[in-house]
Amino acid sequence: MELRGSEAAPPTLGVGMVGYAFMGAAHSQGWRTVGRVFDLPLRPVLAAIGGRDAAAVRAAADKHGWAAAETDWRALVARDDVQLVDICTPGDSHAEIAIAALEAGKHVLCEKPLANSVAEAEAMVAAAERARENGQLAMVGFNYRRVPALTYARRLIAEGRLGTLRHVRVTYLQDWLVDPDFPLTWRLEREHAGSGALGDLGAHIVDLAQYLAGEPLVGVSAQLETFVRERPRLEGASAGLTASGGTRRGPVTVDDAAVFTGRLASGALATFEATRMATGRKNALRLEINGEHGSLAFDLERLNELSFHDHHEPATTAGFRRILVTEAEHPYLEAWWPPGHALGYEHTFAHQARDLVEAIASGTDPVPSFADGLQVQRVLAAVEESAQKSAVYTPVQAVQAEVR
Amino acid sequence: MELRGSEAAPPTLGVGMVGYAFMGAAHSQGWRTVGRVFDLPLRPVLAAIGGRDAAAVRAAADKHGWAAAETDWRALVARDDVQLVDICTPGDSHAEIAIAALEAGKHVLCEKPLANSVAEAEAMVAAAERARENGQLAMVGFNYRRVPALTYARRLIAEGRLGTLRHVRVTYLQDWLVDPDFPLTWRLEREHAGSGALGDLGAHIVDLAQYLAGEPLVGVSAQLETFVRERPRLEGASAGLTASGGTRRGPVTVDDAAVFTGRLASGALATFEATRMATGRKNALRLEINGEHGSLAFDLERLNELSFHDHHEPATTAGFRRILVTEAEHPYLEAWWPPGHALGYEHTFAHQARDLVEAIASGTDPVPSFADGLQVQRVLAAVEESAQKSAVYTPVQAVQAEVR
Amino acid sequence: MELRGSEAAPPTLGVGMVGYAFMGAAHSQGWRTVGRVFDLPLRPVLAAIGGRDAAAVRAAADKHGWAAAETDWRALVARDDVQLVDICTPGDSHAEIAIAALEAGKHVLCEKPLANSVAEAEAMVAAAERARENGQLAMVGFNYRRVPALTYARRLIAEGRLGTLRHVRVTYLQDWLVDPDFPLTWRLEREHAGSGALGDLGAHIVDLAQYLAGEPLVGVSAQLETFVRERPRLEGASAGLTASGGTRRGPVTVDDAAVFTGRLASGALATFEATRMATGRKNALRLEINGEHGSLAFDLERLNELSFHDHHEPATTAGFRRILVTEAEHPYLEAWWPPGHALGYEHTFAHQARDLVEAIASGTDPVPSFADGLQVQRVLAAVEESAQKSAVYTPVQAVQAEVR
Amino acid sequence: MELRGSEAAPPTLGVGMVGYAFMGAAHSQGWRTVGRVFDLPLRPVLAAIGGRDAAAVRAAADKHGWAAAETDWRALVARDDVQLVDICTPGDSHAEIAIAALEAGKHVLCEKPLANSVAEAEAMVAAAERARENGQLAMVGFNYRRVPALTYARRLIAEGRLGTLRHVRVTYLQDWLVDPDFPLTWRLEREHAGSGALGDLGAHIVDLAQYLAGEPLVGVSAQLETFVRERPRLEGASAGLTASGGTRRGPVTVDDAAVFTGRLASGALATFEATRMATGRKNALRLEINGEHGSLAFDLERLNELSFHDHHEPATTAGFRRILVTEAEHPYLEAWWPPGHALGYEHTFAHQARDLVEAIASGTDPVPSFADGLQVQRVLAAVEESAQKSAVYTPVQAVQAEVR
Repeated sequence: MELRGSEAAPPTLGVGMVGYAFMGAAHSQGWRTVGRVFDLPLRPVLAAIGGRDAAAVRAAADKHGWAAAETDWRALVARDDVQLVDICTPGDSHAEIAIAALEAGKHVLCEKPLANSVAEAEAMVAAAERARENGQLAMVGFNYRRVPALTYARRLIAEGRLGTLRHVRVTYLQDWLVDPDFPLTWRLEREHAGSGALGDLGAHIVDLAQYLAGEPLVGVSAQLETFVRERPRLEGASAGLTASGGTRRGPVTVDDAAVFTGRLASGALATFEATRMATGRKNALRLEINGEHGSLAFDLERLNELSFHDHHEPATTAGFRRILVTEAEHPYLEAWWPPGHALGYEHTFAHQARDLVEAIASGTDPVPSFADGLQVQRVLAAVEESAQKSAVYTPVQAVQAEVR
Repeated sequence: MELRGSEAAPPTLGVGMVGYAFMGAAHSQGWRTVGRVFDLPLRPVLAAIGGRDAAAVRAAADKHGWAAAETDWRALVARDDVQLVDICTPGDSHAEIAIAALEAGKHVLCEKPLANSVAEAEAMVAAAERARENGQLAMVGFNYRRVPALTYARRLIAEGRLGTLRHVRVTYLQDWLVDPDFPLTWRLEREHAGSGALGDLGAHIVDLAQYLAGEPLVGVSAQLETFVRERPRLEGASAGLTASGGTRRGPVTVDDAAVFTGRLASGALATFEATRMATGRKNALRLEINGEHGSLAFDLERLNELSFHDHHEPATTAGFRRILVTEAEHPYLEAWWPPGHALGYEHTFAHQARDLVEAIASGTDPVPSFADGLQVQRVLAAVEESAQKSAVYTPVQAVQAEVR
Repeated sequence: MELRGSEAAPPTLGVGMVGYAFMGAAHSQGWRTVGRVFDLPLRPVLAAIGGRDAAAVRAAADKHGWAAAETDWRALVARDDVQLVDICTPGDSHAEIAIAALEAGKHVLCEKPLANSVAEAEAMVAAAERARENGQLAMVGFNYRRVPALTYARRLIAEGRLGTLRHVRVTYLQDWLVDPDFPLTWRLEREHAGSGALGDLGAHIVDLAQYLAGEPLVGVSAQLETFVRERPRLEGASAGLTASGGTRRGPVTVDDAAVFTGRLASGALATFEATRMATGRKNALRLEINGEHGSLAFDLERLNELSFHDHHEPATTAGFRRILVTEAEHPYLEAWWPPGHALGYEHTFAHQARDLVEAIASGTDPVPSFADGLQVQRVLAAVEESAQKSAVYTPVQAVQAEVR
Repeated sequence: MELRGSEAAPPTLGVGMVGYAFMGAAHSQGWRTVGRVFDLPLRPVLAAIGGRDAAAVRAAADKHGWAAAETDWRALVARDDVQLVDICTPGDSHAEIAIAALEAGKHVLCEKPLANSVAEAEAMVAAAERARENGQLAMVGFNYRRVPALTYARRLIAEGRLGTLRHVRVTYLQDWLVDPDFPLTWRLEREHAGSGALGDLGAHIVDLAQYLAGEPLVGVSAQLETFVRERPRLEGASAGLTASGGTRRGPVTVDDAAVFTGRLASGALATFEATRMATGRKNALRLEINGEHGSLAFDLERLNELSFHDHHEPATTAGFRRILVTEAEHPYLEAWWPPGHALGYEHTFAHQARDLVEAIASGTDPVPSFADGLQVQRVLAAVEESAQKSAVYTPVQAVQAEVR
């Protein structure tokens, strides 16, 4: 006997996404999956995808399952079937699209980093505050907050399991620029990317440090470096992270690597390194946090694991334990597989989507907010300022006293 | 400008799935995702899902995105919009459903282990051979062959990077039966599950050992054990891996653990351990293969990594290298994320779906075939026979001389 | 001001050692060091070293710091300045030397395996029992019991931290026979070595399994294999583990590898693998023990670490913790370096020496005793018998109900 | 037949050691062992040990095997049977003793850091240069250069296996000051220790970074912190790393932690963190070096292992390989145990002794020289200066263009 469909389906949430490269593919997988795994109060609908190249955006719509495709992001923002605009474009267009979408009455999810400058980010925060009065919500896509091991790490710290924090050390190491013939893609051009490893990788680790600690960075001392100053210009259309270049060379206008130290509001010392020149490291976002009562460690290349040292243990049996963060009681895991069955990178986008959908349904402010994105932007700006001033310690004006 | 849909969409492949528990959810995610990530010659359509409990199967259809729901698997098999039947039920119904589906002219994907007995498996192989003459294909779902690290391991071995094999050692360690009050679910009843850790976990590692080595096991010596002989009977409906029991206890009729040694056709020694009582181990399918020229090691809890030792290296720089199997040149990875961005457990089902869809489109025999499933079944039967005969070495009649 | 020596130096214990190859060097380092690190009731004196080759033994005496050198072990045993005979020769001479030394009124430390046969081992136990009546002590050198991490593992198990044991799995993997041109040294000849990987490596892991569990193995099912059946004969004098061979080949009369499963008295399942053909593994004595309440894991290649899982932890924070066994409260560590400062392989011989010296001073029976050595020998004999009888489960008659 | 001693024993080298705490014990073990393991051109004799407390130094002499004990280091330096003075005292006495010993015609080995100030270190270098004209040698005891894995890492880098260096990142994490009631030992007092984590741990990692890269640091940007500003004063005599304090508290006058970034002469970026407040980390000297063609990684808690990534490998089989640095061809290993048999912390002191003895016998300048010690001292001074000047980048005047 074939059964009829159930009648009480939840109301829908139309999503319009701008951009269809790496982040577009990842967000698509998140939107397609979230409602199939989690029980949601609103059912996300992949309403429309936007991009400038008509053939490419049409192909992306078919590939990723978007109902419609638009070549003008303004048309996408204006669509009646779009209630949420998801911005996956390079950083130089974030502010314009986000502000327009908010002004058009839409909720907004914007990829990180929030913007290419503090001024843009401040304008976005202002727009988000105005829109909030109409019940619209805005979120920035620091997806690594939704790696279950890191969400759980935050919970352990917030519960006081580490006590007063002493040290935060974070690296984000990749190696895709080691080859000096890797071409000049948009990620290596200041006018599009804002900065290099700093904005791409450094933004993630600055946000994570503040999120995990629950408090802002109040100052930094930094050095930046561009090891390979010229690279082959792209012939034809730019691709994403993999591309081949031609024979003419042009200047790299962003950093290859950023190293900086900093202070959290509570006085803890923090160290950061973001680089695309760490030969052999593919995605090594590694962090360790030491507190008076314990420590945590994590490596994104082993994202289902969290290391936890409980200093209350007797010395003879104490040690960093390898927690497989795949138990039903761990964040997001109630919806997935039995213990020990690994999740991957893309799951962070489904988790992000879940939290945003729930926030929209309940009218609660999502995190990370645009203000959190601005906070990161101010740190990045202070890093650049410090680097220009011989690494002198440069204060950061905190957006908020706590980081949720 | 909104763009029209492209006109040259590929033909569809209607999938009908029987079963909606853990495996049903995992297969659903595979079917939903595969066409969004890989470029396929046929577009899988989630046509219908089948199960006995009308409310539950209807809810599963809604949750997982199946167009229709059926309470009778025979009706599902008979549907015109179903060309492929995907069997995700307990082992005691595999033979009946698979044979009926093949006789109804459908392709079949059957979860592992292929059957609960050698006789059933032989009947399934015979049915698959008859159906093959009509162009129908049959595949057994040993999904771990599609962990990219393991697919790649097979490739390295097939290319001769390890030379003559000496040792294969594999364990599959879980711990969800450590608690003596975990209830008597169907997986602990011989009439439904066929065996315990042996058929559930042992089947995986026997298949992997043969697949990686490319040759069958020719004999085994085994011991089985049921440490907890009675458990609380389930009150009400059975759940999957997590459930709670009542106060009355009943007998556990399957093994908690199986340990066995064996010989591969080439003379290599193999050791196996499958257990649900390895306290603290959640999904520890760990293997190591040693050959004359090199070795490989793998741990399912870190499924994006493969360890490889090349014995041609000078001793001073030789060592097991940790390969992150996330490069575009690695199996299945061309379709996913940049290097270092982890995949998870469920991706194996998308990969399995891709390979089956391509086999159907091209009329090629998929692997693992039902014959491969029978080969595993014969090993499991020899394990049980050996265990009953004081662990005496018990030959296994090989189905085929090579394992593809 | 130069200070006079203290007057209350402890009495001495004269040690006479037979053998000066790998084990001789390791024991020498142990005897030289033990009194400089631990506070001992007797001061060991390196009185005499014995060996057949006059030039070699004289050089060894000079190199390792022995006061005298003898070419006849009977002369060494008879020396008045020798109260303890330390036997570091190949297994075929253990029984003769040990029994003679005991009959001459000396304490005896004998390298493992205790003997090359059960009959020899039984004779040695009988001799030790007779000598015990005169206050002489006998110990067998299973030095890995004195790796602090393993001594501590035993303590945790004895304290009940693991509860009822379910699984013991141990491998001892080396690769020095992978090269088919490695020559026929005495370790590959049955008449000198007794057996191959089984007696050399298997003896260690059988002893450890019983020591850690605190109970004997009661039966085994085994397979043995010699992958390379002929090797170049040695030209000139045999060396130890590294040597080069000539052009004539001779038969290898011992096993390259041994795999076996077994039962402990309490019913726990045990698996063992000892091999010299595990390409890339240098000294991989790896073990894991699973009990009702927790688990332990260890790898000799990281001998300062012990992994411990406490199943009483909540699931969300449970995991194998990496204990650095370098705290002052850990066994033997009160005498060494601050936490985190690694010990090495040779320290086990100093620890063995300490425990034996303390036993002699206090008149307490040391462990492992000759009876413990006999227990291992019976297991090895059962392994060989099982392997000859198609791996059939072969009972082992336990020497004692408990293993201390 | 007892054999006579050989007649051609090598000439002796009388060693006089000042200090008998942790470093004194470690150096004693090195001096006792070196001649028993390595074939040396001179035979070290433990001639005399010096210390202020008569009873303690006498006991240390007995314990560690020194022939004589002196309560005045000047008397020790003046002894005819002392040709080499080994300085193991706190840093505030290094300059005085070393200069006096050199002026008395002795060779000198001085523990690190070389001195408590640049001025002292410069005076020591000048004294060493004057003494060099008489054939006397001076060495500073950065023993970690003699961890075989690190000696070998230097060799790989010097051979160009990493190409141009991009990144050096080093941490040295301990946790023995986490407890706020750990007492005020001499290591926490500026007048004795010079600095805190910086001089104790930071000196090691600065030296290693320069040694491995083969080039000096040319500038640093630093922050220092003392998290616990007051601690219980010691009642009675100070102990070493473990001690208990009284009820009165006094000020901690050194840093608990130092974080700094720097530049190597070639332009590579370096990051450093030295702390005694990294809860759960016992001796975590961890380093990674990334170059154009490869990378190396190391962790002192696993000191027998070196990780090496060779970027010339195809991407599909590339990965950090875990080299067990225990092969006979590895530095220092020809004299120790078979492959896979671990060395420990104390072996570095035997290796240091071997190299110094060989340098003295051959009249070659040993490394690290006092000039290398001065180079480290200048970096430490620049770190302190930068920390006082808001972390501004502070140049370091290089002692030499290369670091041997």
